[in-house]
Amino acid sequence: MPSHQEFMARAIVLAKRGLFTTDPNPRVGCVLVKNNEILAEGWHEIAGQPHAERHALAKAGATAKGADCYVTLEPCSHVGRTPPCADALIEAGIRRVVIAMKDPNPKVAGKGIARLEKAGIDVICGVLSEQAAQLNPGFIQRMEQGRPFVRSKIAMSLDGRTAMASGESKWITSLDSRRDVQKLRARSSAVLTGIGTILKDDPLLTVRAEPDWYQSEYVRQPLRVVVDSQLRFPEQAKMRLDGNPLLIITAKTISEQPTTETVHIANANGQVDLRALMHFLAKREMNEVMVEAGAILNGALLQARLVDELIFYVAAKLMGDNARGAFSVPGMLQMAQNIDLDITDMRAIGSDWRITAKPIYNEAF
Amino acid sequence: MPSHQEFMARAIVLAKRGLFTTDPNPRVGCVLVKNNEILAEGWHEIAGQPHAERHALAKAGATAKGADCYVTLEPCSHVGRTPPCADALIEAGIRRVVIAMKDPNPKVAGKGIARLEKAGIDVICGVLSEQAAQLNPGFIQRMEQGRPFVRSKIAMSLDGRTAMASGESKWITSLDSRRDVQKLRARSSAVLTGIGTILKDDPLLTVRAEPDWYQSEYVRQPLRVVVDSQLRFPEQAKMRLDGNPLLIITAKTISEQPTTETVHIANANGQVDLRALMHFLAKREMNEVMVEAGAILNGALLQARLVDELIFYVAAKLMGDNARGAFSVPGMLQMAQNIDLDITDMRAIGSDWRITAKPIYNEAF
Repeated sequence: MPSHQEFMARAIVLAKRGLFTTDPNPRVGCVLVKNNEILAEGWHEIAGQPHAERHALAKAGATAKGADCYVTLEPCSHVGRTPPCADALIEAGIRRVVIAMKDPNPKVAGKGIARLEKAGIDVICGVLSEQAAQLNPGFIQRMEQGRPFVRSKIAMSLDGRTAMASGESKWITSLDSRRDVQKLRARSSAVLTGIGTILKDDPLLTVRAEPDWYQSEYVRQPLRVVVDSQLRFPEQAKMRLDGNPLLIITAKTISEQPTTETVHIANANGQVDLRALMHFLAKREMNEVMVEAGAILNGALLQARLVDELIFYVAAKLMGDNARGAFSVPGMLQMAQNIDLDITDMRAIGSDWRITAKPIYNEAF
Repeated sequence: MPSHQEFMARAIVLAKRGLFTTDPNPRVGCVLVKNNEILAEGWHEIAGQPHAERHALAKAGATAKGADCYVTLEPCSHVGRTPPCADALIEAGIRRVVIAMKDPNPKVAGKGIARLEKAGIDVICGVLSEQAAQLNPGFIQRMEQGRPFVRSKIAMSLDGRTAMASGESKWITSLDSRRDVQKLRARSSAVLTGIGTILKDDPLLTVRAEPDWYQSEYVRQPLRVVVDSQLRFPEQAKMRLDGNPLLIITAKTISEQPTTETVHIANANGQVDLRALMHFLAKREMNEVMVEAGAILNGALLQARLVDELIFYVAAKLMGDNARGAFSVPGMLQMAQNIDLDITDMRAIGSDWRITAKPIYNEAF
């Protein structure tokens, strides 16, 4: 007999289909079960369109009556762009609702469950909650802490170098790695870089969606955010010309009306206040922010303890000590200040290795 | 029915038992087989003591008559510290000899086989030859090219750093990694370092044998070789005082009788000639040279294309761009000059990752 875990695992698989298309909403999957068999499946596909439960209920129709519902996130109880899912489950005559995790927004968490229970529905919460949380690290962190989940991507040689001294860096990693990076961008609400990268590489940092991605036609372009303390952004930079969303963050007073949206977020030292920037981006509903930057911005984000995850693409080559490093952290002078890493995943991508790690900021740092 | 490969695989396993104790001889394993069953096993245990075939023959006694012999290296045909093994196999009445690889010494290769065949013994050569060659990379390279196999060990953080700017480096890697390094030292004929490491760390670089190693009581101390162009080696350095073998290589003219053996090997630039040093070490019967040095010597060895293998112990931490790198290669200015790596092994050692790689020196370098 299949267990709660097995049905919830299936709901999590379904939720992942929305990885590139639900932003700023969470990715959610749903399975309706009767007599230990799956009756209907659904997932939240595209922001503004029906939630996971609605899709599954629509497929099941009248047979939903008396069924169990497995859903990766607490059903909503408020009217958003769509009516509350809790009501839809009640109306359909669902017998029991199994939930992986509560709504992370402390102001609403539990209200969906309360609504279901009040209607006499049996509710179980906490099945595969960790796995379900991994679907939405940004949405959860934004709701709970008011800042996005920050994921920094580093493409480097085995000896930890990201570019030659001249700036040459095309390409350290393989085509497979660069295609993998496209998926990281596509799942992100925003891509963050520094003015140094703009001046050196003049990149676009857009997503080139692949046809084999789910609903690839609905993949949206993440907001490109450039930290540009002194407003050096060139008028002719490619990013200004392609029409995709772009935001410049400066520490300089904005005197004339800029052609590109520009926001002033400075600290007392006349630099961009990175923590304030993150709160600003959370207010703009940015869930996951991907950092594609050089050593200075990456180091400053670490120093500010703002990096939640590092994804290294490591090429099997040596670039030597003349080449540039990945993290400029001027205050790091003793080993006691080193940042430990909790490696959560490691796998081969083409000829490279991809290492996923969470930084552990210790007290001496 | 067991195949040639299976019996040879067993002989290779046996050969490995001599990993720390046969130097400067090769590691060799031997299996005697009759009616598809193993009759006796042997391996070369300790330099100066009997060869693998002798051990197996002694165990088999008269039953060796009519048996097949599997041996990982061509039996010797010359009188060394022991009489020729080919003769012993002939005398014992061995029917067939299966050999993994010929003697790598071009001057003697094939003579053992010829002697066996002349006595009417069926000889098969080339079974698991690659695996057998991996037992003795240093012995083979010394015989074929007149230089040792050079293996450089690098303990570093994930961002490629080997010490803080201050020199602090104790300990980047875990205790498990440092114990693993002891095995690398123990299998090496020599450990090579630079004067910078002596002045900074004052290390011993000796082997602390573990009781669970085969014949751990016979593990010898590798020759410690210090590249010290300007003869800055301190009189009170620990290495001078512990009585283990030590050799200083200088580019400076040796004026007075040194207390430690000191050899002058200079190039036209007044530096130690690293290629000449390797030929010198080969003449001293050094098979495997392990490099435990800083970025300058490691970079110079790479620049001279003398590194055959790199073993990285990578700790899951970030040390930042202030910290020291692993390879100072001043001439490496373009990506076309980068050194590609062929990763041959990768595994977890304690909390670290150990990556074994062969450098691929391209033409632009």
